[in-house]
Amino acid sequence: MLVVVCLNPAVDVTYRIERLRPGTSHRVRESAARAGGKGVNVARVLCQLGVPMLLTGLAGGRRGDEIGADLADAGIATRFVEIAGASRSTVTVVDDEDATVFNEAGPHVSAAEWTRFLEDFGNHISDADVVVLTGSLPPGVPGDAYAQLTTRAHGRGAAVVVDADGEALLCALPAEPDLVVPNHHEAAHLGASPERALDGLLRAGARNAVITLGVQGLMAGVDGHRYRARPAENVSGNPTGAGDALAAVLARGLAVQAPWPDTLREAVAIAGAAVALPYAGGFDPPTADRLRAGVELVQLGDPRSG
Amino acid sequence: MLVVVCLNPAVDVTYRIERLRPGTSHRVRESAARAGGKGVNVARVLCQLGVPMLLTGLAGGRRGDEIGADLADAGIATRFVEIAGASRSTVTVVDDEDATVFNEAGPHVSAAEWTRFLEDFGNHISDADVVVLTGSLPPGVPGDAYAQLTTRAHGRGAAVVVDADGEALLCALPAEPDLVVPNHHEAAHLGASPERALDGLLRAGARNAVITLGVQGLMAGVDGHRYRARPAENVSGNPTGAGDALAAVLARGLAVQAPWPDTLREAVAIAGAAVALPYAGGFDPPTADRLRAGVELVQLGDPRSG
Repeated sequence: MLVVVCLNPAVDVTYRIERLRPGTSHRVRESAARAGGKGVNVARVLCQLGVPMLLTGLAGGRRGDEIGADLADAGIATRFVEIAGASRSTVTVVDDEDATVFNEAGPHVSAAEWTRFLEDFGNHISDADVVVLTGSLPPGVPGDAYAQLTTRAHGRGAAVVVDADGEALLCALPAEPDLVVPNHHEAAHLGASPERALDGLLRAGARNAVITLGVQGLMAGVDGHRYRARPAENVSGNPTGAGDALAAVLARGLAVQAPWPDTLREAVAIAGAAVALPYAGGFDPPTADRLRAGVELVQLGDPRSG
Repeated sequence: MLVVVCLNPAVDVTYRIERLRPGTSHRVRESAARAGGKGVNVARVLCQLGVPMLLTGLAGGRRGDEIGADLADAGIATRFVEIAGASRSTVTVVDDEDATVFNEAGPHVSAAEWTRFLEDFGNHISDADVVVLTGSLPPGVPGDAYAQLTTRAHGRGAAVVVDADGEALLCALPAEPDLVVPNHHEAAHLGASPERALDGLLRAGARNAVITLGVQGLMAGVDGHRYRARPAENVSGNPTGAGDALAAVLARGLAVQAPWPDTLREAVAIAGAAVALPYAGGFDPPTADRLRAGVELVQLGDPRSG
């Protein structure tokens, strides 16, 4: 079983408008709201893949209720710890040219609430093969939260995937997560090239690392080998959530101990198929079928020698 | 007693960000949410003025609950008819230069829900001196909704103020509302000048009309006389809701049958004092005290002769 942790879930609101003009009023032509946040997106993809999974995290207020209800409708098993603060929204304004995103920081989490989550987490991971720690930390949660959770998961024999950035990622590395999955924007802070960033992540403690490269696929340093995988075609659509779909496939691969080359190919195919959907948290199966055959995988050598 | 009708209330969300750049992601530095919509703003100002008042309308879903809870916290008496659709949000994104607004259209209202509201409305207005009809009509509500409500209110001996625009305003005029309060943007559609717009409104059925002119005050055609009122100073701040504060004061004036010149002066002072607050639905009493003495009122002549 997989346990996915989403400490800062959101109600993701999408507005379609004619044309964004700063300083003016806009009539929203179409609006949609659904539960989101990276952990929720990973959970949705795992659910679509038929992987047994539990989604845990922190949620509160009316948005928290909305998130819970939407995930129940989607058939996703959740065990959120209820907090006093109100879960956040994100608003994405889409016009014919662009998507413009507004991300709320999230509710403040008290020390007592964090302690309660840690206790709960201990119970939920007793049967977990893999734990996925993904997304931003809400205010009040300690910066080394993912290190704390990694250590606890390892203590119960579960492997850990961390898909985060900034402080949350850096502080997790000394706890030796089994896989980290930063994107190329984050990797640019970590090294002058994806290769250097991979080296840095592995030296800092990550047991394996995959850097997502958007439409270019990924670069991986796994089991002492280095790979480059790229799709044969660029899918046009909505790239939001493609990285989460990729992380979901990698987590499943870890859980079933699939050979890394197979897992990396499948991850690139599913990530591309996620772009084909207009929303984050899912993939288009026919697109996945088409992409799967064409993924180009090249072994580059030992990542520790670069 | 006053009855305020708000058929399309909203949760007004305000985001403060660094700088709006279309096509990028933004961290929201500060967010706030409160019940809004023109009717809610009018109700809040009447409440601050100590005027006995009931707020009615249509609300549904989680946003509807949020609106009800926020108004209860503010001490405002409400009787919303619950609808199956979910009440809307508006999002205002504020950076150091501008405010950019996204207005959802609102929930669809069924014919049965509208009928239920009409029945309810009949009960609520039995003790009303003045009924205020303000703001947009949600989808499904008939375009002549304000005419229907005006006729019912007149049948019970209540005076009616309509603060609306477009079809909602135009369709209300034949029912002879006691006062209409369009703003100068709306008036520009109704006549080549505010004077012409006043004439048109009065000829089309309005018993009295006031056109709000933003920082320039107002122009009024009331009781067969025409007035121009303007503040002695421009208050800087947030003009959203200033027109609603003005409408609230005019409605109170109608209810107590105050002399029009006094009511118009007070309306200009309170509208200016509303600008001094960072949010809509309230006014700053010290600013009102300062402005009150300086409002310049000029009688221009008979509006029906222009």
